[in-house]
Amino acid sequence: MTERLVVIGGDAAGMTAAATARRRVPADQLDIVAFEKGNYTSYSACGIPYLIGGLVPDVDALIARGPDEHRRRGVDARTGHEVLAIDTDRRRVLVRRGADGVESWEGFDQLVIATGSTPRRPALPGVDAVGIFGVQTLDDGLAVRAASDADDARHAVVVGGGYVGLELGEALVRRGLSVALVESEPQPMSTLDPEMGALVADALRSVGVEVYVGERVEGFDTDAGQVTGVQTSARVLPADLVILGLGVDPNSGLARDAGIPVGTSGGITVDDHVRAGVDGIYAAGDCSESFHRVSRRPVVVALGTHANKQGRVAGINASGGDAVFPGVLGTAASKICKYEVARTGLNEREATAAGFDAVAVSIDSTTRAGYYPDAAPIRVRVVAEQGTGRLLGAQIVGEEGAAKRVDVLAAAIWNDMTVDEVASMDLSYAPPFAPVWDPTLMAARRAAAALG
Amino acid sequence: MTERLVVIGGDAAGMTAAATARRRVPADQLDIVAFEKGNYTSYSACGIPYLIGGLVPDVDALIARGPDEHRRRGVDARTGHEVLAIDTDRRRVLVRRGADGVESWEGFDQLVIATGSTPRRPALPGVDAVGIFGVQTLDDGLAVRAASDADDARHAVVVGGGYVGLELGEALVRRGLSVALVESEPQPMSTLDPEMGALVADALRSVGVEVYVGERVEGFDTDAGQVTGVQTSARVLPADLVILGLGVDPNSGLARDAGIPVGTSGGITVDDHVRAGVDGIYAAGDCSESFHRVSRRPVVVALGTHANKQGRVAGINASGGDAVFPGVLGTAASKICKYEVARTGLNEREATAAGFDAVAVSIDSTTRAGYYPDAAPIRVRVVAEQGTGRLLGAQIVGEEGAAKRVDVLAAAIWNDMTVDEVASMDLSYAPPFAPVWDPTLMAARRAAAALG
Repeated sequence: MTERLVVIGGDAAGMTAAATARRRVPADQLDIVAFEKGNYTSYSACGIPYLIGGLVPDVDALIARGPDEHRRRGVDARTGHEVLAIDTDRRRVLVRRGADGVESWEGFDQLVIATGSTPRRPALPGVDAVGIFGVQTLDDGLAVRAASDADDARHAVVVGGGYVGLELGEALVRRGLSVALVESEPQPMSTLDPEMGALVADALRSVGVEVYVGERVEGFDTDAGQVTGVQTSARVLPADLVILGLGVDPNSGLARDAGIPVGTSGGITVDDHVRAGVDGIYAAGDCSESFHRVSRRPVVVALGTHANKQGRVAGINASGGDAVFPGVLGTAASKICKYEVARTGLNEREATAAGFDAVAVSIDSTTRAGYYPDAAPIRVRVVAEQGTGRLLGAQIVGEEGAAKRVDVLAAAIWNDMTVDEVASMDLSYAPPFAPVWDPTLMAARRAAAALG
Repeated sequence: MTERLVVIGGDAAGMTAAATARRRVPADQLDIVAFEKGNYTSYSACGIPYLIGGLVPDVDALIARGPDEHRRRGVDARTGHEVLAIDTDRRRVLVRRGADGVESWEGFDQLVIATGSTPRRPALPGVDAVGIFGVQTLDDGLAVRAASDADDARHAVVVGGGYVGLELGEALVRRGLSVALVESEPQPMSTLDPEMGALVADALRSVGVEVYVGERVEGFDTDAGQVTGVQTSARVLPADLVILGLGVDPNSGLARDAGIPVGTSGGITVDDHVRAGVDGIYAAGDCSESFHRVSRRPVVVALGTHANKQGRVAGINASGGDAVFPGVLGTAASKICKYEVARTGLNEREATAAGFDAVAVSIDSTTRAGYYPDAAPIRVRVVAEQGTGRLLGAQIVGEEGAAKRVDVLAAAIWNDMTVDEVASMDLSYAPPFAPVWDPTLMAARRAAAALG
């Protein structure tokens, strides 16, 4: 008998699930349908800032696999189709076809919910004006690019200093706009400890971004429905274009309405097989919770890497396999102007909040041997637990060659290593790549010394 | 009572031991003397190729700490002093002062042997001619630089395709010489599996190095004591300058003559505290064996990273502390022309020799997202154990951004991870730094699939 797998959401998590299931089970045993309400499938959302900034000239470059290609490979990918409801009892979803508004119920045996997330829009006066953008989908990105191309687009304001906002801010500088950033915290990049965020603020200023920290946005000036300014607690900034970089919320409403459990984080609750509490229903990607391996708590972290891995696990399990998603560390990286920024595990504040007696130590070093051409500065900060010496988190800010070093610390955290053990690890060295003590090892050594 | 720590050897291992001990114990409790037969202390031997090639203009740039600086910090560093014998019973060493040839016995309470290694000189006709260099010390490097500057220096031949030989070959190309490489194995870089070495051979050819593989060197032509050519099993290559890149042998003779145990590897036998079998005597760096964490065998691996870490452990233990050296993976990296080359753990041949039922898998990917500017090729090869799935080794060859990725795989091997676990790890991603599946994760996934 041919079963049917329905996937809601056509980007990283959903289409990875669909493609993984397709590779495992032939079409005569499993029918696979994916509904995507937007116009694109399987694209790199993380590439949107580079499309806007012009480093990636063509939208097609960001699309790993369009709907036609999915269909050729045996996945019935339907763009412009929005799922309106999930009926878990009768195992069907209500789908509206965008082209003509026709609604129909589509049955499933297995369901993967991969509905993604939506940028937060604060309930402030004027927030719905034309020219105020949250950027999550490729459609959003194209809208920003078009708006930034308008003849009268001069001033952009980024509200919120998370990595998406900062990447978009840099992109708009490249596009020739003057850009201001407003961040309510004392530093941008509040996923980093403040001293690391301060380096990022310096980098932004160096490319001409006006950085206003410690200021709250209180509303938006508009003229005939178009945004013209951003009111902060300290000033009014002119704005033809506003980017909301205040984070995202999981799109879990569809699941919640269907009685599928949603956690206090707002994400769909899943177990280590990404099962969503109802037999044969899975959730993956931004819409779902992940188990954080250090805090031991469910978290929502909207990252493409998690979406891909969870989608793969969902696809295996939804097609009769047995795969486990072992959790996340929240490892993330971003390039902000000349700086590479990366983090993994918990920062100092998060570690304290999670109940750890945490010590944080920073070191300054270089990406290559000090005497080698183009040796660039790098700062590594590690957070460790007093008593056990366990590495809890790490942050890196530096120039070319800095960010990817966070991976070795992620691997160390993944394996519950102490900073003393980390400092002993046998890492690679040659003058073009590192000082003889890699900055990551040096930071671990310094932390071991600080712990006594 | 003031004790006395004597260190034999003034580079990475020895001076790290001396400086570490100095920081731990004040001068009125511990007198520290270091004897170095050459002219320099605490220099970057790994930087020598860049000094010869001109990327590092000044020899001083390679010296982290000269003898005067050591003395200022309370370590009596004596260059031009060669230790001729160790008397373990009377706890003293016989030292010859180079300046006047005067010999004297110097007592010790604790001794750190850090005598380094010597490039292999095969017993071939003409091998002692002028112009044939092994390059291990800064003095050696300066001699090669001077020889390559001679007006009639046109042709250089590198004998042996290890990383030191290749780095020096590239340096001599930069210096304007024509360079040929002779390697008896089918590919250069025999620490890599052959398909990876083949990429390195391509890189060498691309900068104009003539690469002769599968040819043995059989002797050297000379004229009035100066080398003029290299005889291989297939041809005679003109040579004004020859670099011996055939590996190094540990300088363990001094220890062996004193009755200190030396292993079948040729290195001084040490325990996990780098104790050399006689109370109060330690050995560190190239002259000593290291415990290989994958093969579980003692090995000699001449790398600056090990020397620094072992020197630190020796310095702590020789000054009343308690530090462990937990072993090595043989992690190493090198830049050969446009390629970055790195390895860790065991290659396929080594894994088989160590008794593992090994499977090796290679993947090709890019250093950045495929659509991001300057995305460069990278090949990752992983070696895993059939049955357990344990990661045993990894090799990387690629362009800018490739080599340092080996560290995350080194961390995985360090922690005995399986390739399946590795593929699940939460590594960093952003389009300027990686595809959404980092090449290391992709290789681990592919290996997991190949293992079934």
